Amino acid sequence: MKLVILLLISATALLAANARPDPDFNPIRLRSEGRVGAFVNNCESWRLASEVNNFRSWKVVPEQCVDYVKSYMTVEVGIQTQYEYDVGTVVLEAIEYLNTVSPAKGKNDTWLFDLTDTLLSSLPYYSRPGANYGGNPFNETAFNEYIKEGNSPLVPNVNYLYKDAQEKGFKIVILSGISEDLRPVVEANLNKVGFAKWDKLILKYKPGMPTKDFKASERAQLKKDGFKVIGNVGDQWSDLLTGTNAGKRAFKIPNALYYS
Amino acid sequence: MKLVILLLISATALLAANARPDPDFNPIRLRSEGRVGAFVNNCESWRLASEVNNFRSWKVVPEQCVDYVKSYMTVEVGIQTQYEYDVGTVVLEAIEYLNTVSPAKGKNDTWLFDLTDTLLSSLPYYSRPGANYGGNPFNETAFNEYIKEGNSPLVPNVNYLYKDAQEKGFKIVILSGISEDLRPVVEANLNKVGFAKWDKLILKYKPGMPTKDFKASERAQLKKDGFKVIGNVGDQWSDLLTGTNAGKRAFKIPNALYYS
Repeated sequence: MKLVILLLISATALLAANARPDPDFNPIRLRSEGRVGAFVNNCESWRLASEVNNFRSWKVVPEQCVDYVKSYMTVEVGIQTQYEYDVGTVVLEAIEYLNTVSPAKGKNDTWLFDLTDTLLSSLPYYSRPGANYGGNPFNETAFNEYIKEGNSPLVPNVNYLYKDAQEKGFKIVILSGISEDLRPVVEANLNKVGFAKWDKLILKYKPGMPTKDFKASERAQLKKDGFKVIGNVGDQWSDLLTGTNAGKRAFKIPNALYYS
Repeated sequence: MKLVILLLISATALLAANARPDPDFNPIRLRSEGRVGAFVNNCESWRLASEVNNFRSWKVVPEQCVDYVKSYMTVEVGIQTQYEYDVGTVVLEAIEYLNTVSPAKGKNDTWLFDLTDTLLSSLPYYSRPGANYGGNPFNETAFNEYIKEGNSPLVPNVNYLYKDAQEKGFKIVILSGISEDLRPVVEANLNKVGFAKWDKLILKYKPGMPTKDFKASERAQLKKDGFKVIGNVGDQWSDLLTGTNAGKRAFKIPNALYYS
């Protein structure tokens, strides 16, 4: 904590002392001071770099960006939060794409959806002090308790895409790293917020396997079973880039709370 | 122009009339009104969707976002523009990655750089009234005239990454859709801003070929010639995702001015 504040003060002082172009950007100096990597001096840039997958595998929201992420997720700008605008824009774009494709007759052409923070939001969980908008390390036990409450709200507006794809005759497959043990509560939660049916809801039945690997292997299995992924919707790049059958088009739902 | 204003007014009125969650988001209604796709109601969301490659193949910056893009590129927030912070963050992340890799002995392990808006900026061109910060359709003749002036400035701070990769012993390959005819001016411009040497500077010697295809074929050729791309740096997803030999890691430099 002290170290981070010290770095921030140093960074701010260094930055403030110089006009653009910034000689203190010099990565050689930053590196010699051990500051490359810790050097998040702009939370907008941090979020963009993460969304674009330039910045990967981060463990927690940087301390200096927790308030920024909280605002991003909860403060209305206009009539929605910036997060909600960002999700809505992706949903509209995905619907645009959906309008250009049709399921092949007699085939299992599929729209594949991730579950957590793609269909069901974990924002209420991340709003709790223990999670601190992603500023604290992930606590699997506490997170599973949240899932068990069965009260996750909708990720805003993704339901329109889901419904459109279903009505158009695509198979709907939901693929999640949530444990198979939690199936009853997950199904009830999906029903409660308006997802009435699906063709497959695949939950993690291989407890030891990393979710990324599990999802990749399940997508490969889907392919073997004839489920060709046309549209792939997820909030993590691991949903969208890893392995085969990752979709003709992928749509990345924003997520500033965690990277997995 | 009138149509866009009308749509904006309608959208604003519709949006303002409703509390969150926004019933007027309803894509079915938007579609019936021909407004899906044209419905950029938040320029932040538009830029994010483009950076993430959710929103593709757009031709011009939407009229309602031209001022936003101008600010993004030119207005300092703190001591840099947001664009400059965004580029700097990617550069630092790329240097972090560079620090974890070394060129294999006797091999041509390569860092591959795009040219325009990865090493040399076209912001002065896009600031001209004819280009209007990407709000006007691309004018190839005018753009080539700009290149011929030979005064393109550095994309800020990418030089540090370039230099570090070179000093570490990686081959440096620059791959661009700019015409081979312009080689002398491009080389002089690179030298002028501090890029003194490279292993290959590949300019488009196949005038008829779309740049995306040209780059993909040249990357495949590089592979055949033993140039294995370790880091790939570009401002367009077509630099980073298309074809083989696209790099062990790709780094997307932001670009809000155009999509190609």
